[in-house]
Amino acid sequence: MKKINIGIIGLGRIGQIHFSNLKYCIPNANLVMVADPQKAGEFNGVPIGTAEEVINHEKIEAVVICSPTDTHSVYIEKCALAGKDIFCEKPHDLSLERVVCTLESVKKAEVKLMLGFNRRFDGNFKKIQQLVAQNKIGDPTILKITSRDPGPPPLEYLKSSGGMFMDMSIHDFDMARFIMGKEVEKVYASAGVFSSNDVKEAGDIDTAIITLTFIDGSMAVIDNCRKAVYGYDQRLEVFGNKGMAQIDNNKHDTHLFFDQSGSHGALPLDFFMDRYVDSYKNEMERFVEALCKDEPVPVNGQDGLEAMMIALAANLSVAEGRPVMLSEIMK
Amino acid sequence: MKKINIGIIGLGRIGQIHFSNLKYCIPNANLVMVADPQKAGEFNGVPIGTAEEVINHEKIEAVVICSPTDTHSVYIEKCALAGKDIFCEKPHDLSLERVVCTLESVKKAEVKLMLGFNRRFDGNFKKIQQLVAQNKIGDPTILKITSRDPGPPPLEYLKSSGGMFMDMSIHDFDMARFIMGKEVEKVYASAGVFSSNDVKEAGDIDTAIITLTFIDGSMAVIDNCRKAVYGYDQRLEVFGNKGMAQIDNNKHDTHLFFDQSGSHGALPLDFFMDRYVDSYKNEMERFVEALCKDEPVPVNGQDGLEAMMIALAANLSVAEGRPVMLSEIMK
Amino acid sequence: MKKINIGIIGLGRIGQIHFSNLKYCIPNANLVMVADPQKAGEFNGVPIGTAEEVINHEKIEAVVICSPTDTHSVYIEKCALAGKDIFCEKPHDLSLERVVCTLESVKKAEVKLMLGFNRRFDGNFKKIQQLVAQNKIGDPTILKITSRDPGPPPLEYLKSSGGMFMDMSIHDFDMARFIMGKEVEKVYASAGVFSSNDVKEAGDIDTAIITLTFIDGSMAVIDNCRKAVYGYDQRLEVFGNKGMAQIDNNKHDTHLFFDQSGSHGALPLDFFMDRYVDSYKNEMERFVEALCKDEPVPVNGQDGLEAMMIALAANLSVAEGRPVMLSEIMK
Amino acid sequence: MKKINIGIIGLGRIGQIHFSNLKYCIPNANLVMVADPQKAGEFNGVPIGTAEEVINHEKIEAVVICSPTDTHSVYIEKCALAGKDIFCEKPHDLSLERVVCTLESVKKAEVKLMLGFNRRFDGNFKKIQQLVAQNKIGDPTILKITSRDPGPPPLEYLKSSGGMFMDMSIHDFDMARFIMGKEVEKVYASAGVFSSNDVKEAGDIDTAIITLTFIDGSMAVIDNCRKAVYGYDQRLEVFGNKGMAQIDNNKHDTHLFFDQSGSHGALPLDFFMDRYVDSYKNEMERFVEALCKDEPVPVNGQDGLEAMMIALAANLSVAEGRPVMLSEIMK
Repeated sequence: MKKINIGIIGLGRIGQIHFSNLKYCIPNANLVMVADPQKAGEFNGVPIGTAEEVINHEKIEAVVICSPTDTHSVYIEKCALAGKDIFCEKPHDLSLERVVCTLESVKKAEVKLMLGFNRRFDGNFKKIQQLVAQNKIGDPTILKITSRDPGPPPLEYLKSSGGMFMDMSIHDFDMARFIMGKEVEKVYASAGVFSSNDVKEAGDIDTAIITLTFIDGSMAVIDNCRKAVYGYDQRLEVFGNKGMAQIDNNKHDTHLFFDQSGSHGALPLDFFMDRYVDSYKNEMERFVEALCKDEPVPVNGQDGLEAMMIALAANLSVAEGRPVMLSEIMK
Repeated sequence: MKKINIGIIGLGRIGQIHFSNLKYCIPNANLVMVADPQKAGEFNGVPIGTAEEVINHEKIEAVVICSPTDTHSVYIEKCALAGKDIFCEKPHDLSLERVVCTLESVKKAEVKLMLGFNRRFDGNFKKIQQLVAQNKIGDPTILKITSRDPGPPPLEYLKSSGGMFMDMSIHDFDMARFIMGKEVEKVYASAGVFSSNDVKEAGDIDTAIITLTFIDGSMAVIDNCRKAVYGYDQRLEVFGNKGMAQIDNNKHDTHLFFDQSGSHGALPLDFFMDRYVDSYKNEMERFVEALCKDEPVPVNGQDGLEAMMIALAANLSVAEGRPVMLSEIMK
Repeated sequence: MKKINIGIIGLGRIGQIHFSNLKYCIPNANLVMVADPQKAGEFNGVPIGTAEEVINHEKIEAVVICSPTDTHSVYIEKCALAGKDIFCEKPHDLSLERVVCTLESVKKAEVKLMLGFNRRFDGNFKKIQQLVAQNKIGDPTILKITSRDPGPPPLEYLKSSGGMFMDMSIHDFDMARFIMGKEVEKVYASAGVFSSNDVKEAGDIDTAIITLTFIDGSMAVIDNCRKAVYGYDQRLEVFGNKGMAQIDNNKHDTHLFFDQSGSHGALPLDFFMDRYVDSYKNEMERFVEALCKDEPVPVNGQDGLEAMMIALAANLSVAEGRPVMLSEIMK
Repeated sequence: MKKINIGIIGLGRIGQIHFSNLKYCIPNANLVMVADPQKAGEFNGVPIGTAEEVINHEKIEAVVICSPTDTHSVYIEKCALAGKDIFCEKPHDLSLERVVCTLESVKKAEVKLMLGFNRRFDGNFKKIQQLVAQNKIGDPTILKITSRDPGPPPLEYLKSSGGMFMDMSIHDFDMARFIMGKEVEKVYASAGVFSSNDVKEAGDIDTAIITLTFIDGSMAVIDNCRKAVYGYDQRLEVFGNKGMAQIDNNKHDTHLFFDQSGSHGALPLDFFMDRYVDSYKNEMERFVEALCKDEPVPVNGQDGLEAMMIALAANLSVAEGRPVMLSEIMK
């Protein structure tokens, strides 16, 4: 069995998930070294070095980047220079210019770059994408995504997040492209602040409805909220001339309790760490598999760029109160 | 359009349902006269007579009997003698001997007799029966019926009801035969009193699990309770070598409400008057249709007799703590 | 019991529903005369006259108008002049000017005018409205309505329908106001023709996503399609800071069938005649009740006007590719 | 952190699940040695010895027994003699006498013995047990368990399995005691062979309905089948005077697809290896935790004995066609 030697930069919440999956669950991955400024010595039996040491480690073939967003582009460029394949958490970068530059470097270096849109690897979403790909839906004309968080992140995070569209909705923008299999042409976003003073203080929004128009005129609508009191809400529905498919939210259990006031069921899974636990594992498996077989990665740099442009168009749409063409964003 | 001239005996709760359906919803029924000792003059435009006058009215071709159970056999016999077709509410009678006698008279008079097992005409149950009849389930080997009332009837009613098996479970016994399309051979019933002092005082039971074994060895299990705090509960599931089908309980509405404690749905429809409103109309339509076309009625006297024998076997099973063969009942 | 003497103008599909409900199900309604150019003599025991005769019949206190849309305004004005209370099917009229004029006449004559937005009287939608009114949802910030027809109407109908927004979506616009209990300020609609050549020939659209912004910044999104192959689809979801509520579509039955390929459930109820059968009865009951008690009708002329303005704004939004303020419509 | 040194005997399907959980997911477990006659050297980094070497390894404190059923009693006794705590897969043994003897040895040696009724640690079943324990259901009077396998095991396995009640239903018998929190007094079982020639050849049954009566008269009914074409079916419902709770079967995903023939959902999870993957992990965690804290194990030898007696009573009930008291089994 071919094994890929891998390094990780960043052992925060997501970094540790990738660590655990690569170390315990993916047989053809071999963790060689990890980097995290908060940690020293070794982490669960893997030596800790600096980011530079990981990138330039002669045995390491691929680097998983889970460091803060503002370091992504730098590390990607260094990995490209060092000829290493790359997995990078979303978002690639908050600056469109930097993303474009970085993608150039990646292209020139002929290394692979996979973006961490993990939801594509969730069994539920994948099922819907397959139904579309198998032409069960016919031509998909309406896509509806509901994506609501249980609560907003802390103020500090909000301030450097790039805004709700770039930080949170970007997953839904990628999902829209993934399910529909077409490119977005126009974006109209309507938004407000209803649920959180922190969000207001950060100058951000917390609630939005975004309409995407694809190049063939078909449409998607996404509703987002930073705070759903009943918990994490991740649903989707796609409609076409041959049928409609939807996925329901994932719950803690399947119980129903009936008493004098009606029926009562379980809460949704708490947040992305619970809901998407399998998708994180699946995406890393697919990354390692693509490297082993020298195949294209399933989510590439262009996918990251497209989702980012939709987020920027949504920002502009809210600012100017009008639909925005994606062509306006990429001048 | 052929019209059938009909009389009704008994304008209690069920009698009024049949009245309303026959008068307003079934175009080929013509209500000629009704009888009810509590009423005089006319009822919603239909003249009121005595039971005798209804039975012997020269224009009346068919009589719908909704009077108290202990009068059923007498009225059936009189109708048979008068050559009138008969619809009779369940149970036919509490005495097996009287039922057998009455069926003889009906047979001799060559009139039609339909028993009021209205649930056969409920859209949900009918759908399951059709799936079985269309061989979608394959050979049905397990049938499960849940049938729970929201609360027990008053003590007075309980005392003259013939017991839970004869009064309430008899619908489920008929349903078991209807869905499985086979005859029952053996009955084992386990029962207790858990929910009501009235039931105890009446010497009855209020909770039971009854296992029916059919002549080919396939099985049905029925669970009954006189009191479900969450309301009327009517569900069914049938399993065979090609598949399984089930119906869920009917609710007031389809709403789901989600808050910090989970999801919350509507209560079931209150009781048989709500849940089976359509089935009462459908059964009467089918009765009138059978008369118009001179076809066999969809639920006949033998169906009533079979369900009754199962109820008697269940009584004996509880009394003696052993499975009882149906052949023991009909010596 | 007070009885209201009522006349009906128009005995098409909807007119006959109202006829049947008023005649057989609403005890304090008394049908005096009906009018329909295709019919003569009497209809199920009620004499047939001309529209003029109905409006001017000295016994008739209220008129139910179910004639073609282009006659609504004329009949409303005549009823107002004759001092008769009015129930009018939607849409009131295709011309905003005429609607405004007519409402003036109604106001001057001090008669009641109720518009036939029957969905407000559907048990499912009503339940959601109650949850909002009881503050279970908190401040509602996102409303989502799915409203899809099983198939488009015939070309002839399409040509004179006023377009999808005025003919079909208008129910959803009214629903949005009903559930949210607020006025709409801005409309953005994205639309296309995907499902039907007739629709294209009529110069109409068949698929749309409409975003409504209310005066407080909260939002609604409606997705419409003239043709859903799986049948009539009527769902709704409202989200606020205290919770979320949704209603599912209504199906023929509750059965689920499980075989080697998965689970399989029933189709939705066929179309509005099945799905909204109770709501038609309930709305007529509420109309008659409002007359009996001399109370305001639950859906008045202003409600019709508001929904119409949203439809006109949606038309303009599609034509000009921009969000449209309602204030632009009512100059 | 206290760590428990553990050995495993048997690395078949279940043994490998326990291996993987103990090695990778339970931090306070330390795998010292494993035994399997088919394997030599080391298994994923853990040295392989004989069963004797594992039991008598001086560092090993607890032994997990996953070897064939006919070796369980011998190994348990040896572990007890060696003073090791024990986790043993179900069934403990096919001979009641041997089980009783073994439990004596365990008691005398004052070691812990936990039986592998893993379903108690499934999140869905646990939720129902908690609702009962929290008195949300009130006094539970009816328990219904549906437990159907996707297909029968091979003929060879069937021949030495001890029969369906001992091999398969035993999980449901334990579940009934777990949920109800009471002891079973009487068993009535009705059974047949409908789905498999192998089963017939093995002299076994493949379909059964078993009614359990508890010491307070409350009841449970279990329906079992060795072959459900739609897959593994594990559901449960408990009813009491305060409410009812149920769990639905677990499916591959939450998708629903709607087309012209209705709605279509996913298949159930394939079999126990998928459905109970978490429960295997949870039970091992609880075993290790009980050892660390020196607490009683959550499922002990007596639990195994009780479930076994119910299975024997069910066998006798089918053989003699009558309800059997548990007191008849344990003479």
